[in-house]
Amino acid sequence: VNIVLLDASEATPDGLVTVDDDRARHLLTVLRVSPGQPVRIGVIDGPLGIGTVRSIDGGIVTLACTFSETPERPKVDLLLAVPRPKVLRRLWAQIAALGVGRVILTNAARVERNYFDTHLLNESTYRPLLLEGLQQARDTRVPTVTIHRQFRKLIEDDLDTLTDAASRVVADPASRVSPLTGVATARRVLLAVGPEGGWNDFELGLLRSRGFASVGLGPRTLRSDTACVALLALTHEALRAASGA
Amino acid sequence: VNIVLLDASEATPDGLVTVDDDRARHLLTVLRVSPGQPVRIGVIDGPLGIGTVRSIDGGIVTLACTFSETPERPKVDLLLAVPRPKVLRRLWAQIAALGVGRVILTNAARVERNYFDTHLLNESTYRPLLLEGLQQARDTRVPTVTIHRQFRKLIEDDLDTLTDAASRVVADPASRVSPLTGVATARRVLLAVGPEGGWNDFELGLLRSRGFASVGLGPRTLRSDTACVALLALTHEALRAASGA
Repeated sequence: VNIVLLDASEATPDGLVTVDDDRARHLLTVLRVSPGQPVRIGVIDGPLGIGTVRSIDGGIVTLACTFSETPERPKVDLLLAVPRPKVLRRLWAQIAALGVGRVILTNAARVERNYFDTHLLNESTYRPLLLEGLQQARDTRVPTVTIHRQFRKLIEDDLDTLTDAASRVVADPASRVSPLTGVATARRVLLAVGPEGGWNDFELGLLRSRGFASVGLGPRTLRSDTACVALLALTHEALRAASGA
Repeated sequence: VNIVLLDASEATPDGLVTVDDDRARHLLTVLRVSPGQPVRIGVIDGPLGIGTVRSIDGGIVTLACTFSETPERPKVDLLLAVPRPKVLRRLWAQIAALGVGRVILTNAARVERNYFDTHLLNESTYRPLLLEGLQQARDTRVPTVTIHRQFRKLIEDDLDTLTDAASRVVADPASRVSPLTGVATARRVLLAVGPEGGWNDFELGLLRSRGFASVGLGPRTLRSDTACVALLALTHEALRAASGA
């Protein structure tokens, strides 16, 4: 945890925030804060800031908060075929830490039907995992998550309203194009990552007809969570290189 | 599992290999092979090939094998401060899948002493995890693993004999240089990834004095396993881009 995230509703007009939950335990037992000490904070979907420890009373910590800028929404959106629950559990925090503006989870021919039954698709389960990733990465912007059971309807009817990413790429093991060159130097990128067994021909054709360019990571086949982390990192670095940052 | 790995000792001169363990179960229950069917195989640290199912007898499968080329050793070596056991468990297979020629595990000031007590540092534990990653990535070359308890001795006395990587980079959150530009277009790259809390000043100074250039992944702080996967993927892509592949 590299920042402590607060809910907007927790901040009083005078900037005092009192926490008594896991965050208080983190402040007291990991950071071992004492009165007067500043700690990095952030308001969920709001600004970053500094909270100065005003008082400690048992397990209750009060912070006097000042706020600075609100982080930009990450420039990468992710279209992801619902992975196995075990993989999805590993991915939520990593997705948020790497930086994703929107997660569009979709069905696909090679997604097993029971993958949709997992509690990992419930907001009450994944939101804490996303917040964990944001606290790791010092970000406040929670990825927007939507879940789509009909791939064709999603791509044909809904995708353009969900994301305005001008550059669209699809991970395709058969492609020899590196994500570094395949990602156009656009304002936003939409990255599509298929199921363990890959997109089928219909799905890949539909994605291509909607402007997705194929990219690949070379001849090695990676586990889907490894591939997802690698592709997100490469997409961010390609954008960073393009922006000259 | 995208290839079935065999030990060199299992192949008879006539090219017949009989398996009756997890590999047989995988062939029978996941791939559902039948006689005459070809499956991708590889000899550990040897060639890739094709095994044609000759016979199935209960849980025993006999393959008639022909071999082709031996994969090149991956062009990236990894110098990794021993991570928490939970992180190390997640990393072994991913390291092998992404492709690492040599894993040099080291102590560092911010590595907790008890991290060395884990069975995940025993070859009998990590070798099956490495093979799992190789079978995912269709590679046969098992990363060479060495474990070093004295960082200074490792860097000053042993490192040059362990790797001949001409390009050396160290992940440093303070660096604004992307791995894409920081990785020199060399034959081999040695990538150094520090402990959760980072290298200390002495360690970073010693690495720099030995030719390590700092690279960073931007302002977001990543969990060490996420960072390791991201950095390995970026290093491979930088090499691939440089080689024009």
